[in-house]
Amino acid sequence: MTEKKIPYKIYLEEKEIPTSWYNMRADMKEKPAPLLNPGTLQPMTKEELAGVFCDDLIDQELNDTDAFIPIPEEIQEYYKTYRPSPTVRAYNLEKALGTPAKIYYKFEGNNTSGSHKLNSAIAQAYYAKKQGLKGVTTETGAGQWGTALSMACAYFGLDCKVYMVKVSYEQKPFRREVMRTYGASVTPSPSDTTAVGRKILAEHPGTTGSLGCAISEAVEAATSAPGYRYVLGSVLNQVLLHQSVIGLEAKKALDKYGVVPDIIIGCAGGGSNLGGLIAPFMGEKLRGERDYRFIAVEPASCPSFTRGKFVYDFCDTGMVCPLAKMYTLGSGFIPSPNHAGGLRFHGMSPILSQLYHDGFMEARTVEQTSVFEAATIFAQYEGILPAPESSHSIRAAIDEALKCKETGEEKTILFGLTGTGYFDMLAYEQYNNRTMHDEIPSDEDLKPSLNAIPAFPGNE
Amino acid sequence: MTEKKIPYKIYLEEKEIPTSWYNMRADMKEKPAPLLNPGTLQPMTKEELAGVFCDDLIDQELNDTDAFIPIPEEIQEYYKTYRPSPTVRAYNLEKALGTPAKIYYKFEGNNTSGSHKLNSAIAQAYYAKKQGLKGVTTETGAGQWGTALSMACAYFGLDCKVYMVKVSYEQKPFRREVMRTYGASVTPSPSDTTAVGRKILAEHPGTTGSLGCAISEAVEAATSAPGYRYVLGSVLNQVLLHQSVIGLEAKKALDKYGVVPDIIIGCAGGGSNLGGLIAPFMGEKLRGERDYRFIAVEPASCPSFTRGKFVYDFCDTGMVCPLAKMYTLGSGFIPSPNHAGGLRFHGMSPILSQLYHDGFMEARTVEQTSVFEAATIFAQYEGILPAPESSHSIRAAIDEALKCKETGEEKTILFGLTGTGYFDMLAYEQYNNRTMHDEIPSDEDLKPSLNAIPAFPGNE
Repeated sequence: MTEKKIPYKIYLEEKEIPTSWYNMRADMKEKPAPLLNPGTLQPMTKEELAGVFCDDLIDQELNDTDAFIPIPEEIQEYYKTYRPSPTVRAYNLEKALGTPAKIYYKFEGNNTSGSHKLNSAIAQAYYAKKQGLKGVTTETGAGQWGTALSMACAYFGLDCKVYMVKVSYEQKPFRREVMRTYGASVTPSPSDTTAVGRKILAEHPGTTGSLGCAISEAVEAATSAPGYRYVLGSVLNQVLLHQSVIGLEAKKALDKYGVVPDIIIGCAGGGSNLGGLIAPFMGEKLRGERDYRFIAVEPASCPSFTRGKFVYDFCDTGMVCPLAKMYTLGSGFIPSPNHAGGLRFHGMSPILSQLYHDGFMEARTVEQTSVFEAATIFAQYEGILPAPESSHSIRAAIDEALKCKETGEEKTILFGLTGTGYFDMLAYEQYNNRTMHDEIPSDEDLKPSLNAIPAFPGNE
Repeated sequence: MTEKKIPYKIYLEEKEIPTSWYNMRADMKEKPAPLLNPGTLQPMTKEELAGVFCDDLIDQELNDTDAFIPIPEEIQEYYKTYRPSPTVRAYNLEKALGTPAKIYYKFEGNNTSGSHKLNSAIAQAYYAKKQGLKGVTTETGAGQWGTALSMACAYFGLDCKVYMVKVSYEQKPFRREVMRTYGASVTPSPSDTTAVGRKILAEHPGTTGSLGCAISEAVEAATSAPGYRYVLGSVLNQVLLHQSVIGLEAKKALDKYGVVPDIIIGCAGGGSNLGGLIAPFMGEKLRGERDYRFIAVEPASCPSFTRGKFVYDFCDTGMVCPLAKMYTLGSGFIPSPNHAGGLRFHGMSPILSQLYHDGFMEARTVEQTSVFEAATIFAQYEGILPAPESSHSIRAAIDEALKCKETGEEKTILFGLTGTGYFDMLAYEQYNNRTMHDEIPSDEDLKPSLNAIPAFPGNE
């Protein structure tokens, strides 16, 4: 192995952007369980899914045999406008921590959506356009996915209808305006534009909404208007497939300098970033070529991996979506207020759930105040103001680096820095003012939603 | 000249980051006029400036003979954490406009300060640290400069006191929190922490402050506390010197592909970005080696170049700073509300003023609504959500590209994209809601402040 001076930022050339996505499922001996029709409890067929999702995306959702799926040229062209993203050596953070560990991060925040979400948004918009659709619908909570999708739709000239949880719509007006600037229509949910919205408004006047309700409205809006389909920014197999560009680029960048990570760390909400980052490395592990430690980091307030059950459950609170086998806290689980909006999901990607179940990765929880402490250290030494979601992996990376400081081990750590925190300054303000609290559910708190998961076949 | 396929983004390698700044003054036959002591009306000496500014920065301020000034290694190291910045070919914008013009932009917004301001902030913080100072003071309006300085001070372990115009402090709480996250103390101005602040508060209770007042407070805070100096983010010669990294990188990137711009466009507030972008190109023009068209774009609401006088004037409303010979609307000029906070300065860099006076560059004004129209087009096709300031140059670049569409000329246009608009969404909201207005001062509006400029020696 040749010793080259490693730059702060390893940028690949444009021609080194991956031209195929990598599909982990092809290398998994235990495949993730199929989505089930909640009515028949049989695996969802392509025909059943076609009313809701785009045709090509359904093929990708169901494909667990092809390891590489070519990225269409139109998507490659768009990737060139903001990729390759840098793989950064955290020299300044290492120095500040006084650790012998070598820390790298793959930074996905240098685009206007502020996160990795654009990698899948542009793919989903492309397939919708290719199918001749008029537009797509989706829901958004924190707003990064909605922003990414509105950017992608502006590029392909698609209509974009975003249902935004009402409390976020009102508290995050800037995110809303970014989406509007990209031509999206943004509706606070629940709204009177759908039957389900009207029903909820009648039953709960004055409600500030929920992600589950916004999903139900977006699905209804897609299925009731000709030429529309519903798209989703996480959890699904297709999304992890698209996000594999993160890991493929990171691996190529590290390979250039002969760097092999010992530990790979990512935050886990629905799993899109973590699944994308680890993909090619996990492939090597699945094929028995090389071992890595993978660590999923989740908020202590929403601990799907670490305190959930691995069973079939609904993906949405409204119980309109297919059933997925995953680590879940129950679709009725409502996490306590936590600023990492992107990690507040009761379930987890079925692919990652299977890998965790089979012992291919670890998971841990971190508490919010310690996450913001890590975020602030990172900002001051590495310059980038991280998103609260991303800061979960920063926390774990710092903790691993400090362990190395104790033991003297020179481990190489790679973590995913999914995005920037420019629209999360209310949370930073709470932290700066020392008014932020940790809220960890007790076992009693978790019991009701866990116990409410129906006894679907296969659920022990 | 070899024809190479030009990528979307031309990234230089880390080792290609400039190691010297370029000082335009060395190649100017007519040097910019010196700063004058407002009491004696004699050129400010190093000794007189030393109470306010850092020693090495004064040397740079006064140096109009050395063409290249080496960048200290510590600053080069920090530059590596966020530079080189990309030079981008706007393929998608060209296609959308249907123009034969080739459009490039140098993007300086991919760092947490959100703009080019960090290039000078890190340099100024370094020299303060080198001098053994405890900290620095400054004022900020829109907040980009304050953010950049707080990042730089966090890196070098310096105390950072920012006086933020009270109305911005209240209306832009997120910017304030970014600065606090980087450890800066942020004080709304006017405040009771300075004599001048207390005086203004007594005379004008309930005032929401002004940049002029914040400058006066920051200068007082620097000169009254041992171990502090005052630093400034624009206008000064030293700032243009530091910002020359923008142009040096852009030129190196274009040279790689044999691209020579015909027109170079930048927005102009105090002149820091424009002066930095054009520096090496202007050097060639000054030395008679090659001709370029340079266009300064200013808001119609604050037209220093196009409707101001080229005379000695105060740089601040409080009249505590040295006099500078520059295009000015008078230090009493208060621009009508305009969201491009970074362009709301009554004066202009003395270097750029001299170059404009001597016919080396052009200037034009653009109106706010047309600026946001350009910003929205740019966002939708190029993906990046631009800052209102930067969007002034986008407007002019689009206008020039549309002229090429009419004439069929294949001109090459380079413009400066100074930053991102994530903290400017209130302005985008006004534009999206069609409630934004253009407010252009009449000649009668300009007269009072223009006429109030004192008859300093040399002022015609």
